[in-house]
Amino acid sequence: GPVISEVECEASKTGPSKPSKTAMDDQKRKLEGLTEDSPMRLRMEEFVKRIQIEITSELEKVDGQAKFKIDQWTRAEGGDGISMVLQDGKVFEKAGVGVSVVYGMLPPAAVAQMRAEHPNISDSKDPLPFFATGISCVVHPHNPNAPTVHFNYRYFELGSKDGDEPVSWWFGGGCDLTPTILYEEDAVHFHKVIKEACDQHDPRYYKDFKKWCDDYFYIAHRGERRGIGGIFFDDLDDKSADELFAFVQTCGKAFVEQYVPIMEKRKNMPFTEQDKRWQQLRRGRYVEFNLVYDRGTKFGLLTPGARIESILMTMPLTARWEYMHEPDLQVHGKLMDVLHTPKDWIPL
Amino acid sequence: GPVISEVECEASKTGPSKPSKTAMDDQKRKLEGLTEDSPMRLRMEEFVKRIQIEITSELEKVDGQAKFKIDQWTRAEGGDGISMVLQDGKVFEKAGVGVSVVYGMLPPAAVAQMRAEHPNISDSKDPLPFFATGISCVVHPHNPNAPTVHFNYRYFELGSKDGDEPVSWWFGGGCDLTPTILYEEDAVHFHKVIKEACDQHDPRYYKDFKKWCDDYFYIAHRGERRGIGGIFFDDLDDKSADELFAFVQTCGKAFVEQYVPIMEKRKNMPFTEQDKRWQQLRRGRYVEFNLVYDRGTKFGLLTPGARIESILMTMPLTARWEYMHEPDLQVHGKLMDVLHTPKDWIPL
Repeated sequence: GPVISEVECEASKTGPSKPSKTAMDDQKRKLEGLTEDSPMRLRMEEFVKRIQIEITSELEKVDGQAKFKIDQWTRAEGGDGISMVLQDGKVFEKAGVGVSVVYGMLPPAAVAQMRAEHPNISDSKDPLPFFATGISCVVHPHNPNAPTVHFNYRYFELGSKDGDEPVSWWFGGGCDLTPTILYEEDAVHFHKVIKEACDQHDPRYYKDFKKWCDDYFYIAHRGERRGIGGIFFDDLDDKSADELFAFVQTCGKAFVEQYVPIMEKRKNMPFTEQDKRWQQLRRGRYVEFNLVYDRGTKFGLLTPGARIESILMTMPLTARWEYMHEPDLQVHGKLMDVLHTPKDWIPL
Repeated sequence: GPVISEVECEASKTGPSKPSKTAMDDQKRKLEGLTEDSPMRLRMEEFVKRIQIEITSELEKVDGQAKFKIDQWTRAEGGDGISMVLQDGKVFEKAGVGVSVVYGMLPPAAVAQMRAEHPNISDSKDPLPFFATGISCVVHPHNPNAPTVHFNYRYFELGSKDGDEPVSWWFGGGCDLTPTILYEEDAVHFHKVIKEACDQHDPRYYKDFKKWCDDYFYIAHRGERRGIGGIFFDDLDDKSADELFAFVQTCGKAFVEQYVPIMEKRKNMPFTEQDKRWQQLRRGRYVEFNLVYDRGTKFGLLTPGARIESILMTMPLTARWEYMHEPDLQVHGKLMDVLHTPKDWIPL
């Protein structure tokens, strides 16, 4: 089905240049203070902005040297965004954590697409107001023993022509790990933490979303997955918004526990020039996935007025392509096996 | 209109696994020796294979150290290919020159697409036999003062259900230069040589194909061209096949004169670390164009059974992405101007 991408927020910069009534009402609500009865839009926005600060602060501690550079912007049509990027640190080659909040109008063609997954969307030929907010993060470490990580959690609403009650809403997101050198214990840890988060909310979630992740991060022309998986979900509206928000919060809060212990173990390990070259080649695959397959990136790049620097924040600082490079299977055979055939890191 | 890509040859590996009658007849004709009356298929194949040897030999002289590695393959369905790649040389970071020859069957959907540009293609619902041959070349030098270059010349035939007389045929191709540091005299030289080649065959070609090139190599999400242009043409069948073959030969033979004198001037120039970093960032743009926009690469990547290493031979050895990098306009302002607004390097 259609995917509301993690960068859609950035992408939808066309439309009227004054804030909608909903956007203005929400501004007022924020000034008055949020409660559990506030619209989910505002609660999710508050959540992603809060964990952006927590996560970047934890990542700065891991780096021990570099600080995130903060870019904030607002949209005339309503909404705003904060991109935080740490570049060329002691531990991290590049780490980007972005949040965005978008109030906009969705063209009829896009509305029609969404109706497939969300049948309660009316059969209107007019553009409909939408809202999207989310957090997106990619971290590329220097040390080839330390894995790249990505996560994204987002909330989407489609409104009626008037009024701010959503006609349809859903959550999407996930997290996945991309090691250059495979440490099975790291893969198990990453999956274990997110499985525990899933299990608190639904016993089927981990199993279903783990498979969805393996299917999504597939580089078809290489016959390889991008990494060793995690979870991926979209169009999630099978429980109440409060229940799903609680699930997404548990996932988002799990990130530091998922990733920081791995980094502490790996960030100072010795490595060879061969390891570094292998990492750079795997970074090339990351670029291939992002530019050729990732629905969010593709959507963003093809949308006029998108904030390109936010979309391409996910790119590694450096990457490499060698003609006919063959992986050293003595060293990387296990990783390649897992990229070819996803593995259940913990019993399902 | 639809484009027969430079890698289509590589890409079309599905279909029957024994050579067609045309492929077998052509094998016999080759053994008997080619004349001016031989099918254009064979004359173009012979031409691209000949200039592949000449050009790689000239590039080896420029490098002065590294040699091209040769990979040859044959297709069960008929046809073959030769990929020649020089990697991590003294002068060149990566240089790839590939030729391919493909006899295959084209699915009805692809046939229907081609009918738009070539109305003499019959309205058949069956797959039709096709033939494609071409040469493709990308050269990325180490020295940031030396430009990346790309060229490609190709010939395509669509046959009837039986018999080997083509129902439709055309030529396509072009060449373009991608400097990291702009030397206007190099841009003028590159364009001057190819203009002289064009002018020998048609006074309109250079003007028309120069514009086509500026339009094609456009990185929309950056609002920039990939480089400083050259020529680009496709679906060319407005003269006799003999006349167009002569034109394509003149272009192909012009390459060494277009590029080698520039390399000789630039390959040993001193450069700074800043220059190198700027080059790596521009290499990132090259990757973005190839993976997001280039029709040949996209078609190849999305086609099952394609030879991925041949398609991605065009990638630079290394590339870089920095968040919010701003070009130093004191140094690179002129280059950026030209990438934003193509320039007529020689009076039209």
